[in-house]
Amino acid sequence: MTIATESLVEALKEILSDDQVSINQAIRELHGRDESYHAMSLPSIVVFPTSAEDVSKIMKLAQTHQVPIVPFGLGTSLEGHVIPYDNGITIDFSMMNKVLEIKANDLLVKVQPGVTRTQLNQELKKYGLFFSVDPGADATLGGMAATNASGTTSVKYGVMRDQVRDLEVVLADGTIIHTGNLAAKSSSGYHLNGLFVGSEGTLGCFTELTLRVYGIPEHVMAARASFLSINDAVEAVVSILQAGIPIARVELVDEVSMKQANLHSETNYKEEPTLFMEFHGNEAGLKQDIEFMKEIVEDHHCQSIAFEKDNAARNKLWDARHNLAYAYIHGYPGKKMMVTDVCVPISELANAVHYARQQLDAFGLPGGIVGHVGDGNFHALVMMDMDNPEEVAKANQLNELIVMYALERDGTCTGEHGVGIGKLKYQAIEHGAALLVMEKIKLALDPNNLLNPNKIVKLEEQGVNL
Amino acid sequence: MTIATESLVEALKEILSDDQVSINQAIRELHGRDESYHAMSLPSIVVFPTSAEDVSKIMKLAQTHQVPIVPFGLGTSLEGHVIPYDNGITIDFSMMNKVLEIKANDLLVKVQPGVTRTQLNQELKKYGLFFSVDPGADATLGGMAATNASGTTSVKYGVMRDQVRDLEVVLADGTIIHTGNLAAKSSSGYHLNGLFVGSEGTLGCFTELTLRVYGIPEHVMAARASFLSINDAVEAVVSILQAGIPIARVELVDEVSMKQANLHSETNYKEEPTLFMEFHGNEAGLKQDIEFMKEIVEDHHCQSIAFEKDNAARNKLWDARHNLAYAYIHGYPGKKMMVTDVCVPISELANAVHYARQQLDAFGLPGGIVGHVGDGNFHALVMMDMDNPEEVAKANQLNELIVMYALERDGTCTGEHGVGIGKLKYQAIEHGAALLVMEKIKLALDPNNLLNPNKIVKLEEQGVNL
Repeated sequence: MTIATESLVEALKEILSDDQVSINQAIRELHGRDESYHAMSLPSIVVFPTSAEDVSKIMKLAQTHQVPIVPFGLGTSLEGHVIPYDNGITIDFSMMNKVLEIKANDLLVKVQPGVTRTQLNQELKKYGLFFSVDPGADATLGGMAATNASGTTSVKYGVMRDQVRDLEVVLADGTIIHTGNLAAKSSSGYHLNGLFVGSEGTLGCFTELTLRVYGIPEHVMAARASFLSINDAVEAVVSILQAGIPIARVELVDEVSMKQANLHSETNYKEEPTLFMEFHGNEAGLKQDIEFMKEIVEDHHCQSIAFEKDNAARNKLWDARHNLAYAYIHGYPGKKMMVTDVCVPISELANAVHYARQQLDAFGLPGGIVGHVGDGNFHALVMMDMDNPEEVAKANQLNELIVMYALERDGTCTGEHGVGIGKLKYQAIEHGAALLVMEKIKLALDPNNLLNPNKIVKLEEQGVNL
Repeated sequence: MTIATESLVEALKEILSDDQVSINQAIRELHGRDESYHAMSLPSIVVFPTSAEDVSKIMKLAQTHQVPIVPFGLGTSLEGHVIPYDNGITIDFSMMNKVLEIKANDLLVKVQPGVTRTQLNQELKKYGLFFSVDPGADATLGGMAATNASGTTSVKYGVMRDQVRDLEVVLADGTIIHTGNLAAKSSSGYHLNGLFVGSEGTLGCFTELTLRVYGIPEHVMAARASFLSINDAVEAVVSILQAGIPIARVELVDEVSMKQANLHSETNYKEEPTLFMEFHGNEAGLKQDIEFMKEIVEDHHCQSIAFEKDNAARNKLWDARHNLAYAYIHGYPGKKMMVTDVCVPISELANAVHYARQQLDAFGLPGGIVGHVGDGNFHALVMMDMDNPEEVAKANQLNELIVMYALERDGTCTGEHGVGIGKLKYQAIEHGAALLVMEKIKLALDPNNLLNPNKIVKLEEQGVNL
């Protein structure tokens, strides 16, 4: 431990209790990685605040000592967002994990950032409510807001940014602000809610979130439809969307991934390109929607369609979908997974998925394609041996080809995972001169570049390394 | 005309054609007011660009001459947004009024900022599509994006910010950027779409908008339900929302306003507190939704309910609602209208509307209450004689009481009209320390404070007066 670190630990222990400050190697290692393939780097110190005031004091100290700050939820990020490449202090929000208030009449909930989405949904169930954003991993809501997470239900309910009514944010200088209010809409002032959601800890740390929730739908119906080709499946989705059928979930799983799912989840689903779908609504409306959907998928050479009415079968289906990433990881011991995350205009989706599958085959890397195709967002799940430089190079090249394909068609390099360190190199290509605006905003709000430095935007200046 | 103005006119005529630059008194007067009661102030020069490049050149010239810039659509703003209190150049976008591209497969449309919403809807109709945001006035889409407009359909389809996929923006220094892309969602970079929407010309001028559109719903049903009291009507809305019925429009019109509507629109609707509702969906689903709605309104002592199935009757109903502001204006010749615009959490709505009605009566000012109650947003339409200082003072006091009531309940001073000059005084109370963040953003993007100065935020520095 350097003298600088020692003096900072001393200072932190003056404002927090001893057990809220750790320099333990194992603890630091837990905060030196996420769920991605990105290289590890350890924080010098990990702190565990219990309040916004704690966070404010930590921020002020970081300014005094000119030390970087990285906020940390559960480490489920996929692009190295929480890895502290400049070391410094990691703020772990696990001690701020309370559901503070459920305002059922307003369909709002107030939570601390360390609450996970399943924890929230368990609480909400008692009120007949649910939180809609579902990224697969049981991430914290603070982390989900920081990356503008989304997932299977976004096609109907929107992404994380659409759910955030208000954030309590601690700024770089320790000031505590609120970015919104409890009204359903507002035209007052600049849209700080939207700016801070997706800012990945580079503009401030969230200490409280007020989120929109929904009534559990009266009726839910899930279906699996298998197709001759990925192309048919994707074209069917495009037709469903264009027909205005209010589908709640529509996920593509390619045949390779169906095999992997069957192996891992002990299902015996057909190993063909498949759409996992879900519909929410009233009984009569749902019935009519589903009849219409059936006509459409048949027009697109659907091979078979199966409905899951009861809760257990439906949960099994979505578990199989959610566990797909883990199915690959367990299926290829020793390998790491790279997940691409482009999102394209829906008219470009079929070709984009086809292109990704072709490239995956051409590189000879094991992996599959899955995606939230209702949004035009899909992932290539690519397995690679990190000790094999050739494989890693191939995976990186594949990722780049898929990203460039999307950007050339006015899509985005990341639909839901965020920039972190992995998509930093595409920011200038994707945003052009708008990146300068982002840099100006970062500089205005974090002039010493201490908040999760070199994520999203890379400024010249930065704090000292401990 | 001052020497400074003369030399600027010269310079503008070098970069634009002569007929794109006007110092005509009548033209300047047209650009010196909006639809509000706020005092007139004339621009020194009005310019009519035809391209982003024109706007970029104008911006650069404004920097050289240190002259304020105000963008202008059709002047339908309600808080003095487009009134150039610091004179300077007004950029009128009426020559940039083309629908550039309808991407029906992607449910997207690309337009210039001077296109109006009815103009867009006429074009979209040919494709079975419609644009959802409906603020009443036939505003330009550039203006609607600048104020984050919304209206009757926002309860289902969202506000203007929810529809904007990309903006082409000319910044203060003349740089042209794009704030988004064509993908349905993105976690790449800071959310510039959201930041620029609602920025009221204070951060840049919009020269192109890519907007989300929707398929015209298969079935539409409209209804009028009248109640014994405003309170019953509002409580019914709260119950409908909590039941999760996907209502597409739900508007409150109080008894005074129903009278005014009947006078103006030659209808003979019951002069009781009334909800105007609309439902969109498939036939079977709609039927079930409406049955459920009927049960709920009956629980809230609904006096009568009438359905309008056919297009003509439905249009008549919505015309009566949309023309209400004009109904008051025509009903009180010589008086000006002040429109309040608070939005509160839905659980506070009934009391807030009751409070506003009470205060309106207590002040003895003529007027009524209408509102997009599904969002918690309502307006007191207050008539006042601008030559009677006492009446004006009363109206201002009423507005302030209603705003403070909303802010004390974590609502907002403006749900959809925007800040302009009228809500500037409430920004510090509403946003607290977050206003400093807004000021930093403004300063970072418009360091000389030339873009619509003193709207939304008030900085120290500003350009020269011509």
